Amino acid sequence: MPAGGPDSRVPISAMTRRQLAAGVAGAGALRAARRKPNVILILADDLGFGDLGCYGSKTNRTPHLDRLAADGLRFTNHYSPSPVCSPARAGLLTGLAPDHTGVTGVLREEHDAAGGLSLQSPTMADHFRRRGYRTALIGKWHLGMSEPFRPMRRGFDSFWGFLNGVIDYNTHVSTGGGWRGRRTTFEGAEPAVWAGYFPDLLAGQAVRFIESNRAEPYFLYVAHPLPHLPLQAPEKWIEPFRGMQPDRAVYAAMVACLDAAVGAIREALERRGQWDRTILLFASDNGWAKQVTPAFAPLGSNGPLRGGKYELYEGGIRAPCLLRWPGVTRPGDVTASPSWLCDWVPTLAGHATADGIDLRDVAAGGSRGRNRALFWRFEDKLVKTPLSYAVRQGKWKLLIVGGQRRLFDLEADESESADVAAANPDIAARLERRLRAWVERLP
Amino acid sequence: MPAGGPDSRVPISAMTRRQLAAGVAGAGALRAARRKPNVILILADDLGFGDLGCYGSKTNRTPHLDRLAADGLRFTNHYSPSPVCSPARAGLLTGLAPDHTGVTGVLREEHDAAGGLSLQSPTMADHFRRRGYRTALIGKWHLGMSEPFRPMRRGFDSFWGFLNGVIDYNTHVSTGGGWRGRRTTFEGAEPAVWAGYFPDLLAGQAVRFIESNRAEPYFLYVAHPLPHLPLQAPEKWIEPFRGMQPDRAVYAAMVACLDAAVGAIREALERRGQWDRTILLFASDNGWAKQVTPAFAPLGSNGPLRGGKYELYEGGIRAPCLLRWPGVTRPGDVTASPSWLCDWVPTLAGHATADGIDLRDVAAGGSRGRNRALFWRFEDKLVKTPLSYAVRQGKWKLLIVGGQRRLFDLEADESESADVAAANPDIAARLERRLRAWVERLP
Repeated sequence: MPAGGPDSRVPISAMTRRQLAAGVAGAGALRAARRKPNVILILADDLGFGDLGCYGSKTNRTPHLDRLAADGLRFTNHYSPSPVCSPARAGLLTGLAPDHTGVTGVLREEHDAAGGLSLQSPTMADHFRRRGYRTALIGKWHLGMSEPFRPMRRGFDSFWGFLNGVIDYNTHVSTGGGWRGRRTTFEGAEPAVWAGYFPDLLAGQAVRFIESNRAEPYFLYVAHPLPHLPLQAPEKWIEPFRGMQPDRAVYAAMVACLDAAVGAIREALERRGQWDRTILLFASDNGWAKQVTPAFAPLGSNGPLRGGKYELYEGGIRAPCLLRWPGVTRPGDVTASPSWLCDWVPTLAGHATADGIDLRDVAAGGSRGRNRALFWRFEDKLVKTPLSYAVRQGKWKLLIVGGQRRLFDLEADESESADVAAANPDIAARLERRLRAWVERLP
Repeated sequence: MPAGGPDSRVPISAMTRRQLAAGVAGAGALRAARRKPNVILILADDLGFGDLGCYGSKTNRTPHLDRLAADGLRFTNHYSPSPVCSPARAGLLTGLAPDHTGVTGVLREEHDAAGGLSLQSPTMADHFRRRGYRTALIGKWHLGMSEPFRPMRRGFDSFWGFLNGVIDYNTHVSTGGGWRGRRTTFEGAEPAVWAGYFPDLLAGQAVRFIESNRAEPYFLYVAHPLPHLPLQAPEKWIEPFRGMQPDRAVYAAMVACLDAAVGAIREALERRGQWDRTILLFASDNGWAKQVTPAFAPLGSNGPLRGGKYELYEGGIRAPCLLRWPGVTRPGDVTASPSWLCDWVPTLAGHATADGIDLRDVAAGGSRGRNRALFWRFEDKLVKTPLSYAVRQGKWKLLIVGGQRRLFDLEADESESADVAAANPDIAARLERRLRAWVERLP
């Protein structure tokens, strides 16, 4: 295992700039950064690029996430390695592109008996554990239902949540993505049954973990299920949005509930005096699911981006990402450097991977990886996404859907409305060559 | 069209007994029965044989349905022609076995573009309309999504409800059985959007129909969606069941909500002075869906009966049925005569059909059809029900599932636990011959 991880110093180039900018406080932060900080990773589910106030939402209210953005770093080009849940999570937890994790699509009932994140791939939790961290998962797993694939076998010291993809938030019964019609809720290695609105229970669980946990450092992965459908929220969350069209009110309530969970976690950290020794990362697994439930398509937002979940248009793969890293990130900073979920294993868990880079330099205001290329391959037979490929490098994105090749200039055309391949044949050809080379190395 | 229908006299044999028993009141009722009474048919969804107080439930509270049973006739051998929604409804509305209606299984998304109740088969609403009735459907259709198959084209003067099989009761978006992910709610021929718990809206709609309707006689088909899952109920319905295991409380709330709808309809009839000129029939489309959502399997009850929805065991096809027919049924009467949903077209709409019989004699205390044979054929590839056949005659039932033949004596063994084919080879052979003859006539 290479050296690195959050306890190492940030690259001196960026850090020097930081210190110059921050003066004495910067020096104190540098000392803090030498300890092993706690790491909390909050992953939202199907949260689109345009659904937070700090990303331009006019309908949702997300004061806690907006405050996190103001206190830390906001990514404007943060990607998921997949436009759907399971492979996005596989990429996040392994630092590998989904094709190298054994999980390239949504895990569904046909994978119940066997299947999930490749047992050959160590997870972020494994890496943290080896570095002396206590590891915990609270929330959704969706990387395998059968016993060898469950979280307690994949590096987590504790697990409180559900194994499958989607549950009814009131009854906690699977509505898909594994064990449909059954409860998939577990505490540790044992099935568990609770009563109440699941996201509320989850927030309480995360707060309790922080408040009662005596072992530091810890890695806490909060895989929050919202705002993924079903469209359900208790009255108390809907109340502030009365007057909106009813569906919109429930959706806004779900986003507010997610936001409040982030707020509750922050408060608990502050109460316990851990706020300045905890790295807090907030991200989403993919874009808003415009396609899945047509009646609800308008509720979520991928902002100006085209497409959504199940597609390799930007709306499917580019999503919000906020990072507060005490002593490293600068309040209110924004980065356009391209990054993706696969970067967090090298960045936070100090384990170099084939498909991720260490973003500490970016976190500190640098621009490492500015010119990197990111690659995607995806298809889904159930939702009828044809075999699709994409590569993004700099401002260019080549997208091949069902054999149809298009080139987009994301700087001039963030919405991917104009195919400029004919006007830029060399660029299209170069990207396609790189894409082919990448595809050839896939298993 | 043969003479008959609810405005004709009931058979004199039964009626004479009725009059002898009831005296003067019976004579008044006889006069009332000569007019054309309104007909209200309330069909519950997936309500099992054991889920009403008057059918032995100890957990649910169904005072209004219990009162209906006390005021009218309770059937203990009332069957559906199918163990699933769509074909049961096809049989109810046409009086034909499902194989003759074009609908032999659950209508699902693959039937969205075309498909539904055969356009060759007139419906109960068509028959009533021809007899001068105003016809209305409030609730679930599930007999075809595309325009020619919708209720307004199938004999109904008005329609308020949803076209598909299952909706989320709060958002009204289809969760299956047609147009999954879209709203399927219509008013008349136009899409409609409402807010609120659907079963509450439905009850209000039924009451308004009765209160505001100036045209009598009318045929009102209330296709109530409960207690079919999803397991959802507002607090006000759950409140009385606090203390129960949470899932049970919600299920009991859903049954109570269904029961209250029957109560509200009765109250409206009484307020409008229509109670004694309205035939009220309550039935269920099939048994409780034990198989569909394993986590919720224990919530509903098929009483002592084996199996449930999607199966030809008694639990799938025998369900509650209550009838109050002013001047015909006797308060608190119970009949064990075999009957099924296909009988209601001939009985109520006065149209003889190949697979139904006129139950007026049974309604009046007679036993017409006591020795009739009822036949079933069913399979479902999605839920993996193998090709199954059944025939019931008298106390005997022959059941063939996936080629395996069993004979049950339902009098001695209501739970179909003991195969007595070996001990009764002649009976098994005779029933199988009848079954084969029936199958040979199917399209």
